[in-house]
Amino acid sequence: MEKTVLVMGAGDAIGSAIMRAFAGVGYTVVGARRNGEKLQPVVDEIVRTGGKAHGFSCDARNEEQVTELFAKIENDIGPLDSVVFNVGANVPMTMLDTDTRKFTKIWEMATLAGFLTGQAAARLMSERGQGSIIFTGATASMRGAAGFGAFASAKGALRNMVQSLAREMGPQNVHVAHVVIDAAVDTEWIKGMLPDYEARKANDGVVNPDDLAQNYVWLHEQPRNSWTFELDIRPWNEKW
Amino acid sequence: MEKTVLVMGAGDAIGSAIMRAFAGVGYTVVGARRNGEKLQPVVDEIVRTGGKAHGFSCDARNEEQVTELFAKIENDIGPLDSVVFNVGANVPMTMLDTDTRKFTKIWEMATLAGFLTGQAAARLMSERGQGSIIFTGATASMRGAAGFGAFASAKGALRNMVQSLAREMGPQNVHVAHVVIDAAVDTEWIKGMLPDYEARKANDGVVNPDDLAQNYVWLHEQPRNSWTFELDIRPWNEKW
Amino acid sequence: MEKTVLVMGAGDAIGSAIMRAFAGVGYTVVGARRNGEKLQPVVDEIVRTGGKAHGFSCDARNEEQVTELFAKIENDIGPLDSVVFNVGANVPMTMLDTDTRKFTKIWEMATLAGFLTGQAAARLMSERGQGSIIFTGATASMRGAAGFGAFASAKGALRNMVQSLAREMGPQNVHVAHVVIDAAVDTEWIKGMLPDYEARKANDGVVNPDDLAQNYVWLHEQPRNSWTFELDIRPWNEKW
Amino acid sequence: MEKTVLVMGAGDAIGSAIMRAFAGVGYTVVGARRNGEKLQPVVDEIVRTGGKAHGFSCDARNEEQVTELFAKIENDIGPLDSVVFNVGANVPMTMLDTDTRKFTKIWEMATLAGFLTGQAAARLMSERGQGSIIFTGATASMRGAAGFGAFASAKGALRNMVQSLAREMGPQNVHVAHVVIDAAVDTEWIKGMLPDYEARKANDGVVNPDDLAQNYVWLHEQPRNSWTFELDIRPWNEKW
Repeated sequence: MEKTVLVMGAGDAIGSAIMRAFAGVGYTVVGARRNGEKLQPVVDEIVRTGGKAHGFSCDARNEEQVTELFAKIENDIGPLDSVVFNVGANVPMTMLDTDTRKFTKIWEMATLAGFLTGQAAARLMSERGQGSIIFTGATASMRGAAGFGAFASAKGALRNMVQSLAREMGPQNVHVAHVVIDAAVDTEWIKGMLPDYEARKANDGVVNPDDLAQNYVWLHEQPRNSWTFELDIRPWNEKW
Repeated sequence: MEKTVLVMGAGDAIGSAIMRAFAGVGYTVVGARRNGEKLQPVVDEIVRTGGKAHGFSCDARNEEQVTELFAKIENDIGPLDSVVFNVGANVPMTMLDTDTRKFTKIWEMATLAGFLTGQAAARLMSERGQGSIIFTGATASMRGAAGFGAFASAKGALRNMVQSLAREMGPQNVHVAHVVIDAAVDTEWIKGMLPDYEARKANDGVVNPDDLAQNYVWLHEQPRNSWTFELDIRPWNEKW
Repeated sequence: MEKTVLVMGAGDAIGSAIMRAFAGVGYTVVGARRNGEKLQPVVDEIVRTGGKAHGFSCDARNEEQVTELFAKIENDIGPLDSVVFNVGANVPMTMLDTDTRKFTKIWEMATLAGFLTGQAAARLMSERGQGSIIFTGATASMRGAAGFGAFASAKGALRNMVQSLAREMGPQNVHVAHVVIDAAVDTEWIKGMLPDYEARKANDGVVNPDDLAQNYVWLHEQPRNSWTFELDIRPWNEKW
Repeated sequence: MEKTVLVMGAGDAIGSAIMRAFAGVGYTVVGARRNGEKLQPVVDEIVRTGGKAHGFSCDARNEEQVTELFAKIENDIGPLDSVVFNVGANVPMTMLDTDTRKFTKIWEMATLAGFLTGQAAARLMSERGQGSIIFTGATASMRGAAGFGAFASAKGALRNMVQSLAREMGPQNVHVAHVVIDAAVDTEWIKGMLPDYEARKANDGVVNPDDLAQNYVWLHEQPRNSWTFELDIRPWNEKW
């Protein structure tokens, strides 16, 4: 049985990079996303370079699927040493343009899924008295801006939940942390959003997922006398 | 047609006090809660002392009911000048004791209902270019504490949403504000929770709903060159 | 002996407005600034309209002068019921352009003077078990921005000190509060800074000192079961 | 000429640990404190284990001494790649017990010295377009508590200044960061303060300076597309 890391919401950019980062220091990594078959490339890449990786389909908003996924990993692969929650949900729109279905769906993806993942991890880890649970946050976790009401609401909900979880799990020797990405990350989605994308990327002006991912490994490996709850990430030339 | 104020979530303590406070300075007040018949005492009291008041049943989590309520008030009573969202949902429990149903229900009460109420108000008021929307927050709006994960998550979600709404509505001349109650308020519920309740109350050590409510009127009446988004409330001897 | 309010840093705009606001509800008001003779117009205006007002010279950075001023007021005029600290010090400059003398001077004006004023007030009021001390803050109290290092440092220092003072004085029945002005106020200085000043003012887009000042009176008069520590102020159309 | 790191305020615990941490990954390290001769043990230890280290006397509150120290290091040792500001100043006392001399002195140590150090570093590094400047913060950086007015004021002043510096220096490719230590660190001073010190230390309940120090190296070595401005540090079982 190997020391195992799960990345829930293992998208092509950040999530896959976190998988590679943990695999690079010897962990068996598991990625999960709605369409698990999309994980084949990153799984193949990790295996090709000598690591151990698995990809699963899981709708993180569905309690049953989350429960099953955790059971399968613990039974078939290894005890979870770290669980990363990285489900994204940024859909900018004004409050008047936000219908109830969208408002709810963004909360289900960004918050409820985080609750289900965090609780499943906390249950296992608090029993073993060991492990880390790391959540991906955003600028919108800290405050609401015009045009981002639903997203800011969901990310703020996640952050407050994560703070509660951190305070409950710390004394169980389970490290709960929150990474606030306060900038654009180099993803396909951003490529279409930023007109000056190529110039910014050439200049280190967008966050590189692999560099970002090293911070998750860093947080996981902090000795327990010196745990960080929260750190922010942005490029050198970002205005903030 | 009279200038009208709606208190959504008009409980016996804070909500009723806000109704009395606005009635006291001449507004027609409408209270809404799940069991509207429970509003009869406060409605009677306001009417008896020369004010105008109405009570309605409304499940604030239900979009249809919210829409109907707003339509009825605007059609039958008067244009809404201020809408106060005051639905409470504090159910302390650890993260491991929080099941998905409870986590969701607390969010529906504290956040989704706030979204529905805030959006309905914003739609009317931004069209008229006038009005205020005031939300009741709590310590848990600001951070998550051990034992308060679901509540802190929902109140943090509400606050970030309210910030977004404030930033979108300000330029429409609609004042959005958030009152952070960082202490026990004198309610029936608190009476059972605080062993030293009577001593604290005798000593002004719990928030008096009527005094608290004056701050909602104050916020509503601020001239538009000097709007407050957020203020906190606690008794003189509260430890914070 | 009359109930008395001192405004330390009684400039032509905010400070004078606070004097007028308290005088308007019956307090004897005392203004103090480096050149006390500049207070003659506001003192005359208040007296002319039936109020009681005095103006004194005081360098608020000078402990001896502060001590003398408090003694003189308490002996000759009346017991201080509220003390407002309103000394301004905003001098925008980059960190590399800030010399040690300027960095120190801005701290002396914005922080040290606030310490001396706050402490003198706290000493008197905690002995009497009554009173309020209200400090004027700014956006820069909350965070440092590019070009505002010295000012943000001094205002952050003031805010943290005021929080400590509030927590120590609350249980002595002394209300300590902090008003965060997050916008331009209608002053002579701003008139020269904002190219679109007249248009903004015509549109309620700059804070009116007299409307702002009402919030100081409001804070002072809050019943002790419902004290506010901090509120922010900005115009309806301010971007934040 | 070697890549060099300066630790200003190189005390026996945190500062010395930061020196060891940077020396351990190949940097030439310079420690500075008021009595430079007290640095001999850590300098000897680093040299003995194959590193390069120097100790100097410097009163960090004295502009001339700071200027001289920076010149000497740049001329005689090597270009500064990172500068860490770690001067402590925690003297708990109530506001009424704080005299003007103490209030000023704590600010001079915690804030003014940080300004002088940060500015000297920023001047050199912004010209070279490279480097990092890292400041040690504390719980008191974030808010004022009862009994910590002077310290919280000074640390809040430092934090806001550091935020301004970070925002100005980022686009110059100079990484400015702030480490918030939200707990007791294993120092001689703490040993005398905590009755349960030995039990807490045995249980990883106090921050280990060497583990803490690794975070400074981590921050310094972050690639510029992914910089952290602020991270907090506390033991697993700390209540917060």
